[in-house]
Amino acid sequence: MAFDCGMFQKLKKTRNVQEPRDLNSQLPEKSSDVSTARERRNMFYCKSPDWSEFEGSFSRELLESKNSEKLHRFLIEISHILTDYITKENDRASKVLDFHHPHQLREMMDHCLDIDENPRDLEQILSDCKETLKYCVRTGHPRFFNQLSTGLDVIGVAGEWLTAVSNTNMFTYEVAPVFTLMEEVILKRMMNLIGWEHGDGIFAPGGAVSNLYAVLLARQRYLPQAKLNGMNGCGEAVVFTSKQSHYSIKRAAVILGIGSNNVIYIDCDQRGKMLIKDLEDKILAAKQSGKIPLLVNGMAGTTVLGVYDPLEEIGEICEKYGIWFHVDGAWGGSSLLSRDHRHLLHGIERADSMTWNPHKMMGVPLQCSAILTKHKGVLEEANQMNANYLFQKDKNYDTSYDTGDKTIQCGRHNDVFKLWLMWRAKGDAGFEDQLNKNFDLSKYMLEKVRVRDGFHLVIEEIEAPNVCFWYIPLKWRSLPFSHIEHKQLNKIAPLIKAQMMESGTMLIQYQPLGELPNFFRVAMSNPVITTRDLDFLLDEIDCLGKDL
Amino acid sequence: MAFDCGMFQKLKKTRNVQEPRDLNSQLPEKSSDVSTARERRNMFYCKSPDWSEFEGSFSRELLESKNSEKLHRFLIEISHILTDYITKENDRASKVLDFHHPHQLREMMDHCLDIDENPRDLEQILSDCKETLKYCVRTGHPRFFNQLSTGLDVIGVAGEWLTAVSNTNMFTYEVAPVFTLMEEVILKRMMNLIGWEHGDGIFAPGGAVSNLYAVLLARQRYLPQAKLNGMNGCGEAVVFTSKQSHYSIKRAAVILGIGSNNVIYIDCDQRGKMLIKDLEDKILAAKQSGKIPLLVNGMAGTTVLGVYDPLEEIGEICEKYGIWFHVDGAWGGSSLLSRDHRHLLHGIERADSMTWNPHKMMGVPLQCSAILTKHKGVLEEANQMNANYLFQKDKNYDTSYDTGDKTIQCGRHNDVFKLWLMWRAKGDAGFEDQLNKNFDLSKYMLEKVRVRDGFHLVIEEIEAPNVCFWYIPLKWRSLPFSHIEHKQLNKIAPLIKAQMMESGTMLIQYQPLGELPNFFRVAMSNPVITTRDLDFLLDEIDCLGKDL
Repeated sequence: MAFDCGMFQKLKKTRNVQEPRDLNSQLPEKSSDVSTARERRNMFYCKSPDWSEFEGSFSRELLESKNSEKLHRFLIEISHILTDYITKENDRASKVLDFHHPHQLREMMDHCLDIDENPRDLEQILSDCKETLKYCVRTGHPRFFNQLSTGLDVIGVAGEWLTAVSNTNMFTYEVAPVFTLMEEVILKRMMNLIGWEHGDGIFAPGGAVSNLYAVLLARQRYLPQAKLNGMNGCGEAVVFTSKQSHYSIKRAAVILGIGSNNVIYIDCDQRGKMLIKDLEDKILAAKQSGKIPLLVNGMAGTTVLGVYDPLEEIGEICEKYGIWFHVDGAWGGSSLLSRDHRHLLHGIERADSMTWNPHKMMGVPLQCSAILTKHKGVLEEANQMNANYLFQKDKNYDTSYDTGDKTIQCGRHNDVFKLWLMWRAKGDAGFEDQLNKNFDLSKYMLEKVRVRDGFHLVIEEIEAPNVCFWYIPLKWRSLPFSHIEHKQLNKIAPLIKAQMMESGTMLIQYQPLGELPNFFRVAMSNPVITTRDLDFLLDEIDCLGKDL
Repeated sequence: MAFDCGMFQKLKKTRNVQEPRDLNSQLPEKSSDVSTARERRNMFYCKSPDWSEFEGSFSRELLESKNSEKLHRFLIEISHILTDYITKENDRASKVLDFHHPHQLREMMDHCLDIDENPRDLEQILSDCKETLKYCVRTGHPRFFNQLSTGLDVIGVAGEWLTAVSNTNMFTYEVAPVFTLMEEVILKRMMNLIGWEHGDGIFAPGGAVSNLYAVLLARQRYLPQAKLNGMNGCGEAVVFTSKQSHYSIKRAAVILGIGSNNVIYIDCDQRGKMLIKDLEDKILAAKQSGKIPLLVNGMAGTTVLGVYDPLEEIGEICEKYGIWFHVDGAWGGSSLLSRDHRHLLHGIERADSMTWNPHKMMGVPLQCSAILTKHKGVLEEANQMNANYLFQKDKNYDTSYDTGDKTIQCGRHNDVFKLWLMWRAKGDAGFEDQLNKNFDLSKYMLEKVRVRDGFHLVIEEIEAPNVCFWYIPLKWRSLPFSHIEHKQLNKIAPLIKAQMMESGTMLIQYQPLGELPNFFRVAMSNPVITTRDLDFLLDEIDCLGKDL
């Protein structure tokens, strides 16, 4: 390898950056202070963790009640493997990933990737789990910034574990009584934070599906005949969304038979906010040419720049022209939990629907996304099929608790329990602290990037905790930024990222945006990050990219 | 309560039914033989399971590396709670559910359902988990027959636990390298079992979504302009499906802008199989009236009766008229794993796509559903949006491994690992045994129902392990079955079910079907059930319903 700055030993170098104390409450101890997994385990686990009793034992034996102790011990062994992984993941002295190309990884794992005729014994299964974890990207590592979902909340993990064991389906109260009530409690709280007195909602498998719901609800309101007769003959329906919005709005338009050409993109100002005048102009133009406006999508925290659209004004326009107002708050919707930052969503109560992904800024394990609407009954109106093998009305309980006819799915995974459990463990206050800390950290980083040689901010003022910047190698630093060729600059982030993946010390997303060449985006949602991690990240980029 | 036969003590009554030995390999020991959870735990867990160390400790402390031991112990405590639940769930002396009406349950759980400003300590969180499990329906209990997904596979649970901890997103190889390769391995094996040399597939959040994919792919093939311009002006597209098929085909037509009126239902014979002549007639009629046939959906195991459509003949018709042939094998597709039963899907290799839910007959924890297609590239063709913030083509690895542009989602939960791990643990052979056993059990039950007084089969010959029957109270037994008023008979199953839920000893689905009044469906997918469970179930229904 031609460079050494990404290497492991470099992780321990000391820095002299001044840090606000309260942002560093989670500072790691030195690696040498941390006892080994084995030592830790032996402190409270009396049996030595050898797996010999699982050798030659097969999973079918665990079905027999006489083997319930073995079942117990097997799952406890799994828990030890997993908690060791979590502890290591939190340790800054460990790598974020151990990268291999697909063909390499397939070769390396060949002995254990295969499935065939034969069963493997429980010892092999435990070993498979360890082997799998070895090559996983540590998405909970304090230096994983590659996605909007980062971190690993232990209570969330406990929630997922219980969810797996309760193994039920959210379609009816009959089989998911407690979780149905929890969904009601949580959705009510979320609607309350939005400022709606009434409404409805459902958990969906990800923000893209939540956005699909929104466009479906709008279609149902303005073109109810489409449910029966399809979109053929309905005229040209259109939806409006900002140029900075997530591609799932376009995907929704495609799926719903509206078509990607009928997504009308609204211009944004220099910061990336939807221009109200352009929105109104485009609505008027669409109406004049006989098109049917269904929905305007406003962003509460765009994917890349983290920008909030002017929701109040969009709401006004939507009311004026009678158009469904949806807010995609997949990323930035959680700011509603912070008294300091909820002003970013000023006007949200005017929205007809909102996408909100607790699996992003709130740090809930994947998947956890909600679609919320202020209009009670519309989810059923759009989705009800009255399948009488599942949603019998002659049941012995109040079947309005059966949520299955509100969804586009049939079976539905329980995504609410982990969120409910985390909310119990943190309270509003805990989520608020977590959010505020990440907003503060992003401002810390913004300042660092602003003043540091070789870094150039994409936008100077941020709203959500997204910091976007270009890295400028030494050879171009004497030029004014505007003189650096876009085509050349475009290659820098991918080159640095490739080296970053090889060295495994951190992971950061890059992307182009419109005319802008590739730049890095550091988005903060992991509650364990500190200013030191951010300093490390800048040093590391500098080290990897300086001589390019 | 007016009856006592559903009560707890009745569970222990002895029976004299002759049982084929091999179907009873999982017979329970007597309840008294089973040591208490506490005893079991103390046998290998040296620390007494008191939670005092978690009192006054809050989840935020678990973020600190100095508390990694506490984190470890907390998750081990959770594992103990969960394994105790699993052991109890497998115990026939425990109830399947403890039913309460929504308002009752809310009152009972009121002290712990709430979320508010304040955090709860870790002791409370452990207690919340225990409390939650208390009111869960035990879907893994040997007497839970309410859904097609039953049972709880311990290896599947281990898989879900690891999935939660690895907490990654399936959209790119970059963040899910191992799981991407596992998805490739598993999908290839599934396609191989179908008999396709090439093809593609993706895991989807449930069978309804997999069926949506199928209709979307068909729309993409015959109306590719819909992706750009929507369904308006595309003419009247139609899809064909049997009258016995799952409602998700209609839901897909609604979502995709085809409309529910454009779902053409094909008549079935007395056993519930699609009538080929009616299919051809309706295709011809549709074509003659200028409609555009997109897809024919054939069933591999209908939801209620478990019937397989004549796939070979449907395939021939689809080829003849150039229509996409989809097979909904959500329930019965897994039969491909059994050499004894795969003939039920004779002709499946002719299909263009297939839905297959390992979370049903294969017993994988929810959610695990695959959509498979023999046409490589069509998933991208239909779904590709080329979002360049996520699917950059200038990455340092072969980006054809990024699956995100094949899906209708953006983020996607890892549903493959648990299936992969179970396949490792069982091998093809283990799945085959599991399936064969349930098919055998269903035949055992069919015979019992056929000869038993007060029971009347809905269909005499079964294919998938679904046994459907009416229960006839004493007062009507002297009448020929055809003389019993449908309107009266319709009330019996709901009444018995209500009592069943109150007593909590078992849970079975009932539903009407077309003109047929409410009847019970017992579908077998749990590997722990034995003939004794089925005998118990018939005795119990008899006991609850005799005097109605």
